[in-house]
Amino acid sequence: MRAAVLAATVDVLAEHGLAGTTVGAVARAAGVHETSVYRRWGTRENLILEALTEQLDAAMPVPDTGRVHDDLAAHFGALARLLATEQGRALLRLSAERDGTLPDRRLPYWTERLERGAAMVRRGVERGELAPDTDPGLVIEAVSGALFTRALISGAPVDEDFAARLVDLVLAGALPKPRPAADAAPVPLDS
Amino acid sequence: MRAAVLAATVDVLAEHGLAGTTVGAVARAAGVHETSVYRRWGTRENLILEALTEQLDAAMPVPDTGRVHDDLAAHFGALARLLATEQGRALLRLSAERDGTLPDRRLPYWTERLERGAAMVRRGVERGELAPDTDPGLVIEAVSGALFTRALISGAPVDEDFAARLVDLVLAGALPKPRPAADAAPVPLDS
Repeated sequence: MRAAVLAATVDVLAEHGLAGTTVGAVARAAGVHETSVYRRWGTRENLILEALTEQLDAAMPVPDTGRVHDDLAAHFGALARLLATEQGRALLRLSAERDGTLPDRRLPYWTERLERGAAMVRRGVERGELAPDTDPGLVIEAVSGALFTRALISGAPVDEDFAARLVDLVLAGALPKPRPAADAAPVPLDS
Repeated sequence: MRAAVLAATVDVLAEHGLAGTTVGAVARAAGVHETSVYRRWGTRENLILEALTEQLDAAMPVPDTGRVHDDLAAHFGALARLLATEQGRALLRLSAERDGTLPDRRLPYWTERLERGAAMVRRGVERGELAPDTDPGLVIEAVSGALFTRALISGAPVDEDFAARLVDLVLAGALPKPRPAADAAPVPLDS
């Protein structure tokens, strides 16, 4: 029953918004008794938060390929694909919404999502792929923030190529790339 | 009269939102005739867009200090200070809002704001401070996106230190910093 109710919750949310997502409406859509939903989730708030969390997390894998660049590119490529859809933007809007009918759970919700992404960066630091003083959360916020801003604020198009370019920027930076260090394998210089 | 009417528009917007910002309400707040407002701005839409643009741009200088790091730190430090205020977040929300009473001018509005910021990065590229293939808009989106996302989506606190750390990240990147190149001045090595 759990999966059916959570899927029904996402459908009702996408169609009727937060205010229209009552336990009764979800129970009807899932074809279960309202009392069964209350027994399992206790409150409408718990149900909605669990449904949104599960949906967004399922759409955004946290891969562990052994290469931080590939992990981030896959993770944020999936986010870009999600945000390119109307349903994805609706879910993001709901995850960010405060409408007075739910307590403001946004900060703990987003802190937990951020922590999931930061784990990929932390592994890159541990493998020596990234500088030891890298702030894992900051890397995730710089990439995801640009994607969220296009999707919800500016309305500019979001695609995988944009996500990949953001990942490259936060990893390599915009400063000129120095030539290889003295003890690196020699490479021919053009000038 | 122009400055008084634009200031009154911002006040009315902050207090009553988009829907409550009529030419009549603005004219009353500014102590001018409604017909004078229509004569100058033509439509309510033009008035609101000009007021928001002027307010946000005035709050966010585009300095030209000769150092791209300092320009960006000042620019985004000002944005962080603005977004730390309730009025700043309200202005941002309005600049991002689509409520059906205004045509969706978000993309041209944000494209123009992005272009203002990108000019600082472009100057850094021209001075050789940044890699020649730097995408100026991408740098601006990575920093501003993280700030906007905290202010409007996650609700996490926004401050100048966060802005400064974002600027450092997109300039230097998260990769380990290579030792100086062979032709640089020698520095002692710790290991």
